[in-house]
Order: sequence, then structure tokens, then C-alpha cells
Amino acid sequence: MTSEQRFRVGLLGHGTVGSAFADLLPRRADQITALTGMRPELTGVLTTSRGTFAEVVENADLVVELIGGLEPAREYALAAMRAGKHVVTANKQLLSHHGEALWAAARENGVQLRFEAAVAGVVPVIRVLQETLAGAHVERVTGIVNGTTNFILTQMAQTGATYAAALAEAQQLGYAESDPTDDVTGRDAAAKMAILARLAFDTPVHIDQVAYEGIERITPEDLQYADDLGLGLKLIGTAERVGEGIAVAVHPAFLYDGHPLASVNGPFNAVTIESPDITEITLSGPGAGGPETASAVLGDLVSAMIPPASTPEPAATLPVFADVESSFYLHLEVADRPGVLAQVAQLLGLQGASVRSVVQKGLGDNARLVMVVHPLLESRFYAAVELISGLDFVRSKPRAIRVIEEEYQ
Amino acid sequence: MTSEQRFRVGLLGHGTVGSAFADLLPRRADQITALTGMRPELTGVLTTSRGTFAEVVENADLVVELIGGLEPAREYALAAMRAGKHVVTANKQLLSHHGEALWAAARENGVQLRFEAAVAGVVPVIRVLQETLAGAHVERVTGIVNGTTNFILTQMAQTGATYAAALAEAQQLGYAESDPTDDVTGRDAAAKMAILARLAFDTPVHIDQVAYEGIERITPEDLQYADDLGLGLKLIGTAERVGEGIAVAVHPAFLYDGHPLASVNGPFNAVTIESPDITEITLSGPGAGGPETASAVLGDLVSAMIPPASTPEPAATLPVFADVESSFYLHLEVADRPGVLAQVAQLLGLQGASVRSVVQKGLGDNARLVMVVHPLLESRFYAAVELISGLDFVRSKPRAIRVIEEEYQ
Repeated sequence: MTSEQRFRVGLLGHGTVGSAFADLLPRRADQITALTGMRPELTGVLTTSRGTFAEVVENADLVVELIGGLEPAREYALAAMRAGKHVVTANKQLLSHHGEALWAAARENGVQLRFEAAVAGVVPVIRVLQETLAGAHVERVTGIVNGTTNFILTQMAQTGATYAAALAEAQQLGYAESDPTDDVTGRDAAAKMAILARLAFDTPVHIDQVAYEGIERITPEDLQYADDLGLGLKLIGTAERVGEGIAVAVHPAFLYDGHPLASVNGPFNAVTIESPDITEITLSGPGAGGPETASAVLGDLVSAMIPPASTPEPAATLPVFADVESSFYLHLEVADRPGVLAQVAQLLGLQGASVRSVVQKGLGDNARLVMVVHPLLESRFYAAVELISGLDFVRSKPRAIRVIEEEYQ
Repeated sequence: MTSEQRFRVGLLGHGTVGSAFADLLPRRADQITALTGMRPELTGVLTTSRGTFAEVVENADLVVELIGGLEPAREYALAAMRAGKHVVTANKQLLSHHGEALWAAARENGVQLRFEAAVAGVVPVIRVLQETLAGAHVERVTGIVNGTTNFILTQMAQTGATYAAALAEAQQLGYAESDPTDDVTGRDAAAKMAILARLAFDTPVHIDQVAYEGIERITPEDLQYADDLGLGLKLIGTAERVGEGIAVAVHPAFLYDGHPLASVNGPFNAVTIESPDITEITLSGPGAGGPETASAVLGDLVSAMIPPASTPEPAATLPVFADVESSFYLHLEVADRPGVLAQVAQLLGLQGASVRSVVQKGLGDNARLVMVVHPLLESRFYAAVELISGLDFVRSKPRAIRVIEEEYQ
């Protein structure tokens, strides 16, 4: 390997996200090399105790800024771009205060400034606004962009906990910091909405132009009444066109059941973008977390290395299997007599299928036995169904449909 | 404007999507020019009655293929790339049959082949797999990638309609074609899942390797029992790693309530991507429709024109407003006596607020009046709340929270 094929990455900051990124980069290096033709290598790290900024920048083609806060992050990002280096950052405070100066520096120095991880973690809302919707007329962006508050509100709604109790639980689980002020007051979400509004409407937006209100005054009673009205409560950021201008705000808000953000629970984030051209699209996923945010940073790194002009050659030719495990729904029309369920369960059990839930309905000739079985190989499930269909009390062809379980949320 | 600044676009096909694209391009041309420094212009159109392929290609920097089907789409796309032109296509059949040959042609000729519109319309799943998750280890892709069948299943679930009746309604509303075979048998979804699997796992996948099953045999009874079990039915495509290979399939499948695809209703599409690095992300939006698909094609066009290296200068400096319209939830603790609701409603009405729904709870000193009002200016709503808080029967500070309504679904 010649030195021309290296892509040198300098890392500023080595906290939760920084260390997750330093861990992820070597694990993905082969794949990224296959994709881009260059091998990414961590050539310098600046922490509070080691390295100097000048050294890290000098030895890098791209600088990842994960220090957070305004200074020296601003100074470092500007200096890196002036030195002709691409910059990837996850710093929402920096961009919501000094975005225009930073974007101008990127344009003037012909380098890339990428910041997917600054809003909604690995949820690709920045890329979608900048690329998929480049040239589209966006009317409104609505988002759940703070995972801490969404976790707290979900807990309050699901368990009846008070705000204080739900916050304490969030802190215990690592979803809230020991000083949660930025999150619970809505200020963190306000910074993110300023960035989204800037991209959606092509106009400068500073965090000081975003009105925000937090969740501290929400009571369990609000959530209970809301449930009666068919409403769910979220901390919602909105950025929308109003007359000849725009409005950007963060507030607790109720959503009706059909809203695409209504079913976003726990520490997840989600953003809905509306435009007459596209109706609306919604993106959701984990909004924070070291590995997830590091993944977003890595996606930006890959994009900066080489914009993918075409689909690369296949990395492998994997076998494509036809018989896989699934959970199943099984619907049987049966004669209503003792022992029916036991016999069905026994035949399922012979193939390794266990019953998760059962509903029995109807009487006599109209009896129905409907059940969901835990995951097993499709071939084994259908072998059991074949045997069940031969039982004398089964009155018509059994009906089977796959059931998909959700691992998260 | 000099001729060097033009970006010439040739269009093959002028059906629903083709004509929507021809309509959209000039409307967005100014914005795209500001973004890319080049002005996109439609320099040729090939339809069954006019134009020749040779002329259209010769006069284009990029060719948009919206003919559909295998031939002559394959031949035209290959010839365009061999002539050094970028190609944007929405053709899932083409890519699921001949993808490898087409992607190879793009690599060999140093041109871009983009195809966001081929899967889930404007939902940016192709871009996310190719860029955001470039270098990530994807475990599973689960999708609702056919809007026709999702509309039919939603109708059956919500109204108790039979499959035949729901299909007829879909045809009447333009969500299903007069010959719906490709959609209802799952074959359309199978083509899309082959493309997603190719990108997710970096391995060749042909549509013939995808097992598929349609929705024709689903009965209203299935949906009713499923409801009892807390399940909703969707036509689900899955592509997942299994041992040393992969499995790709399309089946009707039940989802538990918490699944991110469970709340995707009507003609919408959605895709969930799971990876250990990112937990999971979900993307949803309109899966079809002329303007929506044309928007996806336009996004690809802009990306091919110039990969956005940095955030462009603001197009404008729009005023940022603080007082905007919203619907509100209002919670009042009141003395339980006659006329209370009437007086509250009157004060709201003076500010132009009308009540959408009300819940009254409790008795005597513990009475609560909780309501949702239709959208009005925030300042007017709070003026009404100020007056209401002065009423003698209002026992504590009124509590107000925004309510967000969903325009689609």
C-alpha cells in the first residue's frame, strides 16, 4: 500500500462519541477502503491531556471535531478548514451559533463541512435535506430531536410516573445527564431546530431566534386527560414557512394518533419533512448514544472521502437462503370439543414450535382457534401445519401468516 | 449565461412520472442553479411518437430513464452510460434483473447511475444505504415497499371490507392499476427487496432469488382476529443475514403494535434498517405518485450534477416570526356548576378560538374541564386564557399545551 492511498483522520476530543468513533474506524476500515479506494487511518487525537491541535491538523486530510461547546471548537474548525482540511462535527451548539461563518469558511476553502451527527444522531435528516430534497420547496419540518425528553415523556405516559421520577430513571439509565438543564428546558432541541430550519429554508437561523419551552411543568394528569382525547404528548420542534417568513420553536405538544411522530417512543428521535412535491417523509431512529453518533460521523467521513458515483462491485457473492426462522399466526376452524388445543400444541411442539398466545372464538361448528407461535424455521412450521390439517377436528385448510416482532422500543 | 453553465437533461418516457418530471424541472431550475452553479435544461424527450434515442443521448449530459420494463430500457441505459452520460432511473424491474451489468457499466464508464425512485419513491432509502450506512454492517432490512397493497390492507383493517372490495376502491382512487397483478402478488415488492438486499449486503441479488407471496388470500376475519392479538397486517419485505448467507422474501406478515412499521397506513411506504452500530432507523413517506417519484428523480439529478461539498450561501434572509397559529389543549380546574363551559367557550370565541373536543371530569371542588381548540394565533389564544384565568370559578392557573394535527394518512 502506497502512502497516496491513505486518508488521514485527525480526532479532536475523546469523550463518549470520540472513543466510540476511534473504536469504530479501524473495524470498518477494510470495507471503507473497498468502497472508496482509500484507507482511512486515525493519525492524531487531541484530548485534554495529550496532543496539540497543530500536530493533529497537520497530519490529517479530515478533522473530526467532537469536543463540543463553542470554544475552542469554533476556532479549531475554522483553522482546520483554512488549512484545507475537511471537517466533520457533531456539534449542534457550534452550528446553531456560528453556522454561517463555518459554512462560509468551507465554501471559501473548497472543503467539506459535514454534520449529520449534530441533529438526531444517525437519523439521516441532514443528508436528506441537503441532497434528497435539494431544490425542493420545504413547507415544514417537525421533529422529536431530543431523546432524553422523549424517554421521560414516554415513561410518564406508560407508567404514570411524575416528571421528577421519570427524570431520575432517565439519569439512572444514562439517558439524561446529571445536569439535564439543556435537554429538559428544550434548549438542546432549539439548537437542532435552528440547524434544520437553516437547511430547509436556505436562510440564516440563529439559536436565539428559536423560542423554546421545556417539559418540566408537565404532569401525569396532562397525559391521562390527553389519552382520553386520543392525544400523545411529545417535545416537538417545528420549523415552518409563515407568510413571507418562517417560525422556529420547541414546545411540548400533543399529537393525534395518526401523526407519524405519535408512535416514536423512548429515547428515539424522528423528523417529518413536508413539501408539496413529496407530501411528507419521516425519518426515525436512535437520537443519541456513542456508537450510533459515531456511525453518523463515520457516514460523513465516507461521504467526504469520495462521493459515491456508482454502486461498487459486490464485495461477495453470498448464498441466498429460502428457509428462515419466523414467528407465525395460525388460524384453524375446528370442531369445538375438549382436547383440541392440546393436540394442536403437541403437533407444533414436535416441530419445536411453542405457542405464544391463543384466542378461541365461536361455538360448535363455527369454533376458531387462532394462535401466535414463537420463531422457528418455516419448513418446520409448515410440516406441523401439514400434520395439523390432517386432524379429524380441523374443518378447513389451516391459514398461516408470518408475525414480525419488534426488537427495539 | 454561457453554454458551459448548462446541464443538459434527456428524458426517456413521458408517462405519469415522466410528465411530472418535465413539469417539475423548470420550476426548480433557479434553485438548482443557485445550488450547483449549473442550469438544468430538458434538451430532449423520447416518447413512443416523437424523438429518437440517438438524438436525446447526444444532446444530454444526463439521461433520465422512465420508460419502465426490461427492453429497450436496459439497452438505452447501457448505451447512454457507454456514451459517457449519467443515468437516473426509477426502474425496479430493470435493476432487479440486470443490476450488476448496469452498475458495472457505470463504473467502467466513470458515470453515475442513480435510482432512488426505484424503491419507495421519494423515501430516501437508497441514499441512506449507499451513503449514511456506507461501511456499516447491516443485519436486516424490513420494508413496506408497495403502496397499493398497503392501501388495500389498511382499508380492509379499518372498514372490514373484503379483499375484492378494497382492491376495487384502490383502483377507483388510482392507487391500483387496472391489472394489479404485479402489486397484489408481491412481485413488485420482490423486485424492490432484491435491490435493497444488493445494497445492504454488497452481494448480487436477482429477483428470481426472492420468494414472494401476495395478499389475495387475506380475509377480513384474519384482520379481526389479529386485532384481538394486538397485531396489524402488512405486506412485508425482509432481507436479512442468515448464517453465512442472506434471505430475501416478501410475505403478508403481522406486526406487533410497537414495531416502527405498524403505524404505516394507506399508500405510504416505509423501510426499517437494522445494524448493531445504529440499532435501527426507519424511513417513511409516499411510495408512489407522479410528483413524489419525480421529486426523487430530481434529487438524484441534483446529486449527479454536483455532490454538495458544503452548505451553500443562504438564498435569502427570511424574517423569523414568533407568533404563529396552533391548535391547543387547555386544562382548567373549575368549580362544578352550571354555565362554566359556556363562559369559557364564550371567552375563547371572542379571540376566534373554537372548541374541537371537551372532556369533563370529577365533581365539586375537583372538577376538571379539558378541551382541544382549533388552530388560532398563539397570542390570541393566550389572551383568551388570560381572561379565562380571571373567571371566579377557575380554581388554579390554566394549563395550555400545543396540539399538532396530522394532515396526511
